[in-house]
Amino acid sequence: MEMITSAQNSKVKSANKLKKKRERDKTGLALIEGYHLIEEAYKSNLIIQQLYVVDADRLDDKLKDYAQEVFEINLKVAEVLSGTVTPQGFFAVIEKPEYEITSAKQVLLIDCIQDPGNLGTLIRTADAAGLDLIVLEKGTADPYQDKVLRASQGSVFHLPIVTKDLSEFIENFEGEVYGTALENAVDYHQVSSQDAFALLLGNEGDGVNPKLLEQTTQNLIIPIYGKAESLNVAIAGSIVMYHLKG
Amino acid sequence: MEMITSAQNSKVKSANKLKKKRERDKTGLALIEGYHLIEEAYKSNLIIQQLYVVDADRLDDKLKDYAQEVFEINLKVAEVLSGTVTPQGFFAVIEKPEYEITSAKQVLLIDCIQDPGNLGTLIRTADAAGLDLIVLEKGTADPYQDKVLRASQGSVFHLPIVTKDLSEFIENFEGEVYGTALENAVDYHQVSSQDAFALLLGNEGDGVNPKLLEQTTQNLIIPIYGKAESLNVAIAGSIVMYHLKG
Repeated sequence: MEMITSAQNSKVKSANKLKKKRERDKTGLALIEGYHLIEEAYKSNLIIQQLYVVDADRLDDKLKDYAQEVFEINLKVAEVLSGTVTPQGFFAVIEKPEYEITSAKQVLLIDCIQDPGNLGTLIRTADAAGLDLIVLEKGTADPYQDKVLRASQGSVFHLPIVTKDLSEFIENFEGEVYGTALENAVDYHQVSSQDAFALLLGNEGDGVNPKLLEQTTQNLIIPIYGKAESLNVAIAGSIVMYHLKG
Repeated sequence: MEMITSAQNSKVKSANKLKKKRERDKTGLALIEGYHLIEEAYKSNLIIQQLYVVDADRLDDKLKDYAQEVFEINLKVAEVLSGTVTPQGFFAVIEKPEYEITSAKQVLLIDCIQDPGNLGTLIRTADAAGLDLIVLEKGTADPYQDKVLRASQGSVFHLPIVTKDLSEFIENFEGEVYGTALENAVDYHQVSSQDAFALLLGNEGDGVNPKLLEQTTQNLIIPIYGKAESLNVAIAGSIVMYHLKG
């Protein structure tokens, strides 16, 4: 196995550039970190172009055989590639999957959520709840950003996530579309679980774009019984997702 | 208004020490940051011993009159006191409230949650859901740590949060106690909403202490319909809290 000991190595430099969204968009690649996440990419049959490991003994054969190229790196290179303070020593460059969306029955629509932890957690919950598809409006955090990947715990690889015009998607969706809003909305208990639904969540500060809220079947609110002003968007979205699942 | 321009000022040094849990426990005080959080402390009638502001013009009279002492500080001092990269320029030293728990009907029990974001978000949801009380087992993150305070959005001040032996609390609680577990548990849909309940959540990695799970009325699981291995603990706890509220 070839050993890379310099962060100036051209492959390492290319991998490191993938921390920028522009570079991910241009190349269709992403840099992922951590054994668990790489294993999830492998289980989801994503193409692993390169695998970089600090301790080759900890690498099992299935991943070694599966990756197109495998390199040993030293701690210095790992620190350059890592998005965390204590790198685990496992990195991979993967090809981001592309999806053709034909029919989806249970969909999460995300209008410009900014916080990577919130987005990652919502992707994880949508996966757990068995949703078919996540559609992001332009301006939402990138699912292949390292903090989103980490919070999603690999769920980014488990269901299709696409960026699309939400207004157009809602227009064509065959099923009820529920928005979330703090005004002109009904208690979410008033809708029951169903087979086909889309749930629309908005930005942490601004909520959902009012024009999109006009396109929905119904807008929902989660009642606040105490003194909190609101719920965190990942919490609110998760409560309603599981409610709609029934 | 007195101006403090040195981080070596004895009051600033004392305030800064409150970033350590040991110091908070010893003094019964906490350092809080940000206008919103300070306003929440004021609205909850907590004692504000000192208020430190960078821009005195942005300070309204009600807070100025309410605080026992008010100091103007410069940006250098603000950077020392701040837990964030871009300090807002508002800090306060408050007296942590003490609670006498007589009767509580709807309670969140937390067994050693470590992540401050998870704890803060759960406190915020428990507040929103109108719960009466939160009981923490020793070893749980401290609610007066800055990241917990931030994630809670001030909800730390809205309901009593105490540290107590959970085993003893469960023994004396008059109402059903529900644990959360991945094994030997029933689907949470099988229990219905109720007036008196305690919900027990566990550590991110290890879950709830098995001994505590033996003391519960019933242990609950949230079904996973997709490929995710589990839900984030703050998400799971919030889904069940709102389910038990009805």
